[in-house]
Amino acid sequence: MDFIADDQLPGPDLVEEAARILAGIAHRTPVLTSRTLDARTGAHVFFKCENFQRIGAFKFRGAYHALSRLSDEERRRGVLTWSSGNHGQAVALAGRLLGIPATVVMPQDAPAVKRVATQGYGARVVLYDKERENREELGARLAREQGLAIVPPYDHPHVLAGQGTAALELFEEVGELDALFVPVGGGGLISGCGLAAQRRSPGCRVIGVEPAAGDDAARSLRSGRLETVKNPATIADGARTPSLGRWTFPLVRRLVREIRTVEDGPLVRTMFELWERMKMVVEPTGALGAAALLGAGEEFAGRRVGVVISGGNVDLAEIGKLRQIADGGGL
Amino acid sequence: MDFIADDQLPGPDLVEEAARILAGIAHRTPVLTSRTLDARTGAHVFFKCENFQRIGAFKFRGAYHALSRLSDEERRRGVLTWSSGNHGQAVALAGRLLGIPATVVMPQDAPAVKRVATQGYGARVVLYDKERENREELGARLAREQGLAIVPPYDHPHVLAGQGTAALELFEEVGELDALFVPVGGGGLISGCGLAAQRRSPGCRVIGVEPAAGDDAARSLRSGRLETVKNPATIADGARTPSLGRWTFPLVRRLVREIRTVEDGPLVRTMFELWERMKMVVEPTGALGAAALLGAGEEFAGRRVGVVISGGNVDLAEIGKLRQIADGGGL
Repeated sequence: MDFIADDQLPGPDLVEEAARILAGIAHRTPVLTSRTLDARTGAHVFFKCENFQRIGAFKFRGAYHALSRLSDEERRRGVLTWSSGNHGQAVALAGRLLGIPATVVMPQDAPAVKRVATQGYGARVVLYDKERENREELGARLAREQGLAIVPPYDHPHVLAGQGTAALELFEEVGELDALFVPVGGGGLISGCGLAAQRRSPGCRVIGVEPAAGDDAARSLRSGRLETVKNPATIADGARTPSLGRWTFPLVRRLVREIRTVEDGPLVRTMFELWERMKMVVEPTGALGAAALLGAGEEFAGRRVGVVISGGNVDLAEIGKLRQIADGGGL
Repeated sequence: MDFIADDQLPGPDLVEEAARILAGIAHRTPVLTSRTLDARTGAHVFFKCENFQRIGAFKFRGAYHALSRLSDEERRRGVLTWSSGNHGQAVALAGRLLGIPATVVMPQDAPAVKRVATQGYGARVVLYDKERENREELGARLAREQGLAIVPPYDHPHVLAGQGTAALELFEEVGELDALFVPVGGGGLISGCGLAAQRRSPGCRVIGVEPAAGDDAARSLRSGRLETVKNPATIADGARTPSLGRWTFPLVRRLVREIRTVEDGPLVRTMFELWERMKMVVEPTGALGAAALLGAGEEFAGRRVGVVISGGNVDLAEIGKLRQIADGGGL
């Protein structure tokens, strides 16, 4: 993989611009606090709740920002992305709002509810066979054949800058922070949040959090080389990405102090704790930051700590399975 | 039952005073909106989310306000209430915050988790046998013997005025409304909300919502006499109260336009819809207002409608049972 050269990487200005574009379109999501979780950690914890974002996740920010940057010609032809999850719905909704035809490449075995939701926003869904085809190659071929602009889920400066507006709003609302916990999949959200912190809270320690089974970013940051993982077995489906990307790996190296990992058992227990204590529905991936903070004991006592809750799209039919995972682990 | 005479009933001033007392102590809970639910109803719907309130329900407002009004002598002796649910925890927490010893009378068969939570706030819990004892008589006797001030769950001017601050904040945040849906149990919340509306949004149609199996308030409003119900079989445990009270029945007659009822099936389906669409955990009783609005079809199209989400204390271990109820009914 050819990484983007340092002098080509975006800076904080791009996140600030994205925030202006998203104003009045993306929800300015609430920042919630919990006395119970403050007491458990000794910290002052501010939860930026992107589970309340449009389509239920931060992905809307990046998708809308990227689509709004397209030329008239590109808008007319349409966009394409690949995603079995939140980013597909985000591109579909952003496309509808901007009048841009959207195509979403999804695996055949994606949950019907996600396919229907994506089509419900007016996107065309193209199914592929995960065993036989590579979604990025398929997507690139379709885009080339049909003249579509590709809006990837994370490895794109406009996408990651839009995603980073979540942290920018958090700093605007609560001021500077000592630390910020951010879930890591492909690294778009944390790259954007890192850029926001660079401008708005320069002393803030940006901490990524991955599922233990998909710890490629943690290993990459340690080794200084891009490490990968294949189909990691974790309930955190938003963080099953194989690796950081051409844009996000250099940005993570520059902006992120450390990446921690969380096992599925404590992750799902934290998720249920957020449901019970804070009355908000969080998806497993969305609870990564909170789980790492709760796993850190007294380390952040007396500190002002931000936690990005990245999404809330849980299929309630899966709750039995989730409870089994919660009961099985060993926090 | 001797009803309080009209000229003895509280007016809107008491709710305004309560709001000043609660400022900085009760959470100013967020008002959330949902494009999906707006589209389904054609209305502009504002959800006042008391599930994010301290102890997870609006009850904290009334309890803290009532306790803060006690004399020094009463504070020293302590308070007593009866509740197997949110009000017990509310009095316990308010007591701890104000340094007032609290006693909560609870049925022997109340879920252990509620007893532990109430004790966790430092309250003394007295258990009684639902089959053999009447909780109000037992409470009154204990209070007399031990010189404790009684802070009942709803039928008290300070309690209901404090509870009404939820609606006052909603009007402050979004302005006047055409209609406001409020869950009804003993009528404290809706009495207080009605008083708030009288001052802040005089044209607002205040609509109560009860579970169909516990429709005593709906019948009382129609007949003009206090109607009762005994142990109604409904999942909405916060609305299983036997009747309105000495203070709340006259206030409901004065301030509430109508009371609608909702069956358990559609109620629980609405609850899950709020979880899935709005990513917030709502208890069955807390979803009464939303269920009535969704059941009203196009009736409120084009209107500005408030919905009080009264609480979010659901035991996640019960979710299987709740899903069965959702699957069984017939919306």
